[in-house]
Amino acid sequence: MEFPHDVIGMRRALHRFPERGFLEYRTASCVAERLAELGYTLRVGPEVMRTEAMLAPPSTAEVMAAQKAALAAGALPKWIERMPGGQTAVVAEMRRGTGPVIALRFDMDALPVGEITGPDHFPARNGFASACPGTMHACGHDGHTAIGLAVAAALALPASSWKGTLRLIFQPAEEGGRGALPLVEAGVVDDVDLFFTGHLGCLLPSGQIALAACGFLWAVKQDVIFRGTPAHAAMAPQKGRNALLAAASATMALYAMPRDGNGVTHVNVGTLRAGTARNVVPSTAVMEIEYRGETEEILETLARKAGNILRGAAQMQDVEVETILRGRTIGAVSDPEIRQRVAEAARKAGVETVIDEWPIGGGDDATYLMRRVQERGGHAGYCLIGADLAGGHHADNFDFDENALPVAVKLFTALAEAA
Amino acid sequence: MEFPHDVIGMRRALHRFPERGFLEYRTASCVAERLAELGYTLRVGPEVMRTEAMLAPPSTAEVMAAQKAALAAGALPKWIERMPGGQTAVVAEMRRGTGPVIALRFDMDALPVGEITGPDHFPARNGFASACPGTMHACGHDGHTAIGLAVAAALALPASSWKGTLRLIFQPAEEGGRGALPLVEAGVVDDVDLFFTGHLGCLLPSGQIALAACGFLWAVKQDVIFRGTPAHAAMAPQKGRNALLAAASATMALYAMPRDGNGVTHVNVGTLRAGTARNVVPSTAVMEIEYRGETEEILETLARKAGNILRGAAQMQDVEVETILRGRTIGAVSDPEIRQRVAEAARKAGVETVIDEWPIGGGDDATYLMRRVQERGGHAGYCLIGADLAGGHHADNFDFDENALPVAVKLFTALAEAA
Amino acid sequence: MEFPHDVIGMRRALHRFPERGFLEYRTASCVAERLAELGYTLRVGPEVMRTEAMLAPPSTAEVMAAQKAALAAGALPKWIERMPGGQTAVVAEMRRGTGPVIALRFDMDALPVGEITGPDHFPARNGFASACPGTMHACGHDGHTAIGLAVAAALALPASSWKGTLRLIFQPAEEGGRGALPLVEAGVVDDVDLFFTGHLGCLLPSGQIALAACGFLWAVKQDVIFRGTPAHAAMAPQKGRNALLAAASATMALYAMPRDGNGVTHVNVGTLRAGTARNVVPSTAVMEIEYRGETEEILETLARKAGNILRGAAQMQDVEVETILRGRTIGAVSDPEIRQRVAEAARKAGVETVIDEWPIGGGDDATYLMRRVQERGGHAGYCLIGADLAGGHHADNFDFDENALPVAVKLFTALAEAA
Amino acid sequence: MEFPHDVIGMRRALHRFPERGFLEYRTASCVAERLAELGYTLRVGPEVMRTEAMLAPPSTAEVMAAQKAALAAGALPKWIERMPGGQTAVVAEMRRGTGPVIALRFDMDALPVGEITGPDHFPARNGFASACPGTMHACGHDGHTAIGLAVAAALALPASSWKGTLRLIFQPAEEGGRGALPLVEAGVVDDVDLFFTGHLGCLLPSGQIALAACGFLWAVKQDVIFRGTPAHAAMAPQKGRNALLAAASATMALYAMPRDGNGVTHVNVGTLRAGTARNVVPSTAVMEIEYRGETEEILETLARKAGNILRGAAQMQDVEVETILRGRTIGAVSDPEIRQRVAEAARKAGVETVIDEWPIGGGDDATYLMRRVQERGGHAGYCLIGADLAGGHHADNFDFDENALPVAVKLFTALAEAA
Repeated sequence: MEFPHDVIGMRRALHRFPERGFLEYRTASCVAERLAELGYTLRVGPEVMRTEAMLAPPSTAEVMAAQKAALAAGALPKWIERMPGGQTAVVAEMRRGTGPVIALRFDMDALPVGEITGPDHFPARNGFASACPGTMHACGHDGHTAIGLAVAAALALPASSWKGTLRLIFQPAEEGGRGALPLVEAGVVDDVDLFFTGHLGCLLPSGQIALAACGFLWAVKQDVIFRGTPAHAAMAPQKGRNALLAAASATMALYAMPRDGNGVTHVNVGTLRAGTARNVVPSTAVMEIEYRGETEEILETLARKAGNILRGAAQMQDVEVETILRGRTIGAVSDPEIRQRVAEAARKAGVETVIDEWPIGGGDDATYLMRRVQERGGHAGYCLIGADLAGGHHADNFDFDENALPVAVKLFTALAEAA
Repeated sequence: MEFPHDVIGMRRALHRFPERGFLEYRTASCVAERLAELGYTLRVGPEVMRTEAMLAPPSTAEVMAAQKAALAAGALPKWIERMPGGQTAVVAEMRRGTGPVIALRFDMDALPVGEITGPDHFPARNGFASACPGTMHACGHDGHTAIGLAVAAALALPASSWKGTLRLIFQPAEEGGRGALPLVEAGVVDDVDLFFTGHLGCLLPSGQIALAACGFLWAVKQDVIFRGTPAHAAMAPQKGRNALLAAASATMALYAMPRDGNGVTHVNVGTLRAGTARNVVPSTAVMEIEYRGETEEILETLARKAGNILRGAAQMQDVEVETILRGRTIGAVSDPEIRQRVAEAARKAGVETVIDEWPIGGGDDATYLMRRVQERGGHAGYCLIGADLAGGHHADNFDFDENALPVAVKLFTALAEAA
Repeated sequence: MEFPHDVIGMRRALHRFPERGFLEYRTASCVAERLAELGYTLRVGPEVMRTEAMLAPPSTAEVMAAQKAALAAGALPKWIERMPGGQTAVVAEMRRGTGPVIALRFDMDALPVGEITGPDHFPARNGFASACPGTMHACGHDGHTAIGLAVAAALALPASSWKGTLRLIFQPAEEGGRGALPLVEAGVVDDVDLFFTGHLGCLLPSGQIALAACGFLWAVKQDVIFRGTPAHAAMAPQKGRNALLAAASATMALYAMPRDGNGVTHVNVGTLRAGTARNVVPSTAVMEIEYRGETEEILETLARKAGNILRGAAQMQDVEVETILRGRTIGAVSDPEIRQRVAEAARKAGVETVIDEWPIGGGDDATYLMRRVQERGGHAGYCLIGADLAGGHHADNFDFDENALPVAVKLFTALAEAA
Repeated sequence: MEFPHDVIGMRRALHRFPERGFLEYRTASCVAERLAELGYTLRVGPEVMRTEAMLAPPSTAEVMAAQKAALAAGALPKWIERMPGGQTAVVAEMRRGTGPVIALRFDMDALPVGEITGPDHFPARNGFASACPGTMHACGHDGHTAIGLAVAAALALPASSWKGTLRLIFQPAEEGGRGALPLVEAGVVDDVDLFFTGHLGCLLPSGQIALAACGFLWAVKQDVIFRGTPAHAAMAPQKGRNALLAAASATMALYAMPRDGNGVTHVNVGTLRAGTARNVVPSTAVMEIEYRGETEEILETLARKAGNILRGAAQMQDVEVETILRGRTIGAVSDPEIRQRVAEAARKAGVETVIDEWPIGGGDDATYLMRRVQERGGHAGYCLIGADLAGGHHADNFDFDENALPVAVKLFTALAEAA
């Protein structure tokens, strides 16, 4: 497999082959191979992920299909063999003399969104649109991974001025808030002194850097399963217990949960799958939901209300309901020390417009890594790299200004070198 | 007060002054006065109604307002004084020699429907439309009462050929299924040998008679009260417990209760009143609901499902719910003996088209009276008198072909005379 | 492939390999091979089905998967090759001297219901439960097909006394009302003088026969597709156009469509599939719905109301909606001539309890075949063969008393012989 | 009528007699009489309110009932006669030498909330709970009016040091955003140089002052009327067009409108009244709704979505929908000049804790007055006076710490004197 070396080329190569969370086999394989070539020491899969901490791991069938597709796309078996059960994290390390443990973290996963086609869409026009129907890099993690590899290359040069331990963390499954916790639980950042990560876009215009992202939302991600009883829809509908009616009532009521006078809330019922046949009373319904709050207290209020809604909707139709936790994110605040370092690095990287804070407008489970670093005495930060967007994050016409990529590479390289 | 003597004139006089269930003070007063004039012995109010069996009796304020309006419309105080607390039933009796106890029953109440205006509406065009905004004889009970009085006059003539005991029952509050049970519990039909009642219209065309109504539905009528907590709708909506959301979910789900493979079901949420102010989270919601089933078993299934829905909807919004039984109707089947007598009477009355059965398309709490008569060894029946309709029963443009009135008078007179 | 000859053995062999509508490749292959062995002349696939009249045909992928599975289960390639694109009908014919054209019709398809397991379930206990997860003969068509083959064998015997043309029609895709119309449009029953078909079960107890099924409902089956716009559920939810909210509102309102005072109605939203990811505003929702009415007029009222609901729900969320007709059934009434013949055949078959009519409690697109026969001067009928049930039709624990099978074989054989 | 002179006494006297918006006859009468006694020149009713700008004015019956109750409670006819049609504003003026036009504004209206009883509730325990069932000063405007009168008394003293024109505006109908605009349109603040107003409570603790309230939300208040067709709920429900089902769907969907990534949104369906009788398909439904947004753009997005929901819900049930604008509020920002003056006044008033900004957590139509002042070159500001609360604003157990009253009197007095 030929994998480019320039950051834009790498981004496009990754964009063509998007993989969902815990299924990034081709991506992780490219990452591992490149990092090994650059001289980094690698730990992958179970070496850096605690299995028990993986929420909503993929099924064996999903893993096998993803591995098969990755191999067909040129992934190397030697890496895939070391990543069983969706454990696709790659952690690379290099040491130079005495100095702090510096960690940079990048995420790799794509989303179950079908990419639009047509000449208005930059990736389509330039031949690197998703080759995987129904899956798309609609949040820019292709860019993040490419940045990480370009930074790895720059810092591997003998001329690069950093000292200490450099650790590059390529995280799976950021979407849904599932991939960071297994890394934390495996101790990957326990000894980290300086932790940097960030995100492209987020409505910050091209050419700008925000020293810290603010507004990380606390979130809960759940699967909800309603189970009733099927029945012939005309012969004996009264014998059915209708799981879809429960789910429809719950959907309306979840979105209708009250706003909170103390801060931001968000709710989404992302998917609903119910029933088996047109003429059978639907006896099962499965929803993937999430809700978010600006503070832990707001999230707890939402969780209580959502629980009431789900139990009540089940009772309305005399069906059973089960909820399964599928992800969680927490808030985090960048340390002042890190903000200052980002400011200096931005100056070195030639960024003209630097602003203090910018809302991330969602969440990122990097906050788990940040909290662990901060709890153990290190400093952690999360910056934003401005990039004009063609469509919003997670939209099917998402795309970002690739000019942001070299800027980000310079920024992260400077951050490590100045550590 | 001038009250006409011809059946059409009486009907129109009654139509102009519609009164809701247990509030038929002017109507009952006219009825009682006329029956007394005709020589009947009268029992009214508590003498013929068991107070404890009155579901959803009116408030003292409602009773006082109705009495006041009735007096203003010419009702006689002497009758109103004998009808405290909404006990507006009138039972008249006359005896002639030896013979069976024959009961004829007529209902008197109107509906909370606002009558339409305009020249297309017969009562409006002819100057006898409802003078009480928001209340209307939209089911034809004005006709029933007029028929009853005309039959009373015919049977009071010395030439009339009947023998035994003749009992004329003018029942309040048929709508909602509330007025018959207090009569039953007071023993008004305990000694009845032959019980006749019926209904105008019911989609049976003018000129026809159905020997028996079929399809009496079993019904439950309930008030439902959701109680939550008010809160400022913008400052702290999360502190509210929203009773309206519970009621809206329940409304949708009640109508969405499954049809039953074993027979007819019906559901209605007739009214909903919720909230106090635009900018306050609504903390109360009150619904008037009913559901009906073709059999007792179907009704029980609906009742179980409705209970789940109401409790579940309350739980969804963390509010309390209370249900209050407001009415009930049961099914009944006319006895063959009665059908035969109706057939003979119809022939005497000159009815050309006689059919065996016709669906009543709803319910009538006369079934309680019928069941009591049948349980004690008597025979009971419920016939239908065809009458073309301008609008459906309970619709604001309801009206019936007045040519049906003299037919019905002849029919009921013949029934009593042939007993 | 070994295929049994006794009717119970055939039923069990078919039950183990259930196939959905227009995908009955293994079933049709067994049927065709057996009928050919018995000496019948066969027409299959496009010879007897008009392609344009197939509503909701399966996708090429579905057809290929079904053919592959059928071959793996022993189906003969020679038959499958003659049934392209889901055209799985088999029509067998035999002639003997001069006489009427007699048609017997049997359906072959299964349902997307997962069969329950455990020793309480007769097919599981006796080792013939569905080997195809998620698909089940939950309506008894396995029995119908087995009866058809046993009848074919009996009538192929030289000793069998019938005369004229015998036509045996094995129909695909009865469920959903899709399979009969292509046969009609291909002219398969245009010359039929006597048409017989029927159904097992339908709550009629074992040992009984109903001369005619009544209560065939008129039905419409539709797919509904709501299309909106995806958006990041926290960053810019206001930019999303939420197709799931439209579908949830529509689901509630469809079930809440009013009952009809003139007759039976039924509504079902059998399946709903919405959204792609938990944290993306769901931009698509697909529902499989059906509604039924006792008369054509009731169905038209429902269709008008359903159209309003779907368009209104779309407008509420500013999404687009498309509806695709996927099936239709109509009512039908068995001819008196046929009822009489069934009565005689039942007597010959030794059935003790024969009743005139029994509600089918749903629908059957055999009514299209019946209507065509009747329109062209033939007589058509639909009888019911009583069979005690373990669970309701379409339920996951459905099963019928196999003692009904030999009774049905005798009945249909006698019908043909007496024609 | 005896009306106290101390601010706490006045507050309690006003609290006992709460009056809803545009119906503050007793309150305005007390205010006018006291201000006249103090030597102010008064303009009231149509002199200071433009009739055409009154949204949702009360009915004649409501005005007459309120006037009658006010007279019974001691209001003076001479004032009431000058306030026809709900025009209850009182504007008092006094001049002293040369100086700026200084306006202070206070609001007077109460809410349709039933005050709780019981010894835990301070007003109940101290004998000044609402004497008007269903109406309550649940937002503290009783306090505002009392403050205004106490400030009026202090500034009327010869020793008071202010110069110029002092204008005291007692506004009706702040709740619902209806009372300020008629004052603006009448030109009441056209010549104002310095405009001050404020609010008690708003979750700011006792003893604190916020120089400016922030977070004024843009709001739309609407009445929504669905009109369908009544029908007998069992005989012909299919002929009904169900307005309640439309309203229930709309209620769910309005609350479920998406949050906005750009700022705060709020939605409330404050009241719903539907239907006339239990057994009639409900043909009318009236909702009082409001929605708010942090910016004008967010409000416009909500307005567009709400319009779609209302029209779509009507279409779902084939009913008509009408929306009537009943109120509006806009955002506003206090001028720096005013903030500085408030800071100085707070120091003089002895307030220890002064904070720059505090969210008002809702809206106030004083913003219309502020905008008019600012547009014409004056300065305007809105401060908050901290007061611990027993229950939230608009809750039935609302009450505030009366110690805030003398603080506010000192603050507003100092503001005028320093102008």
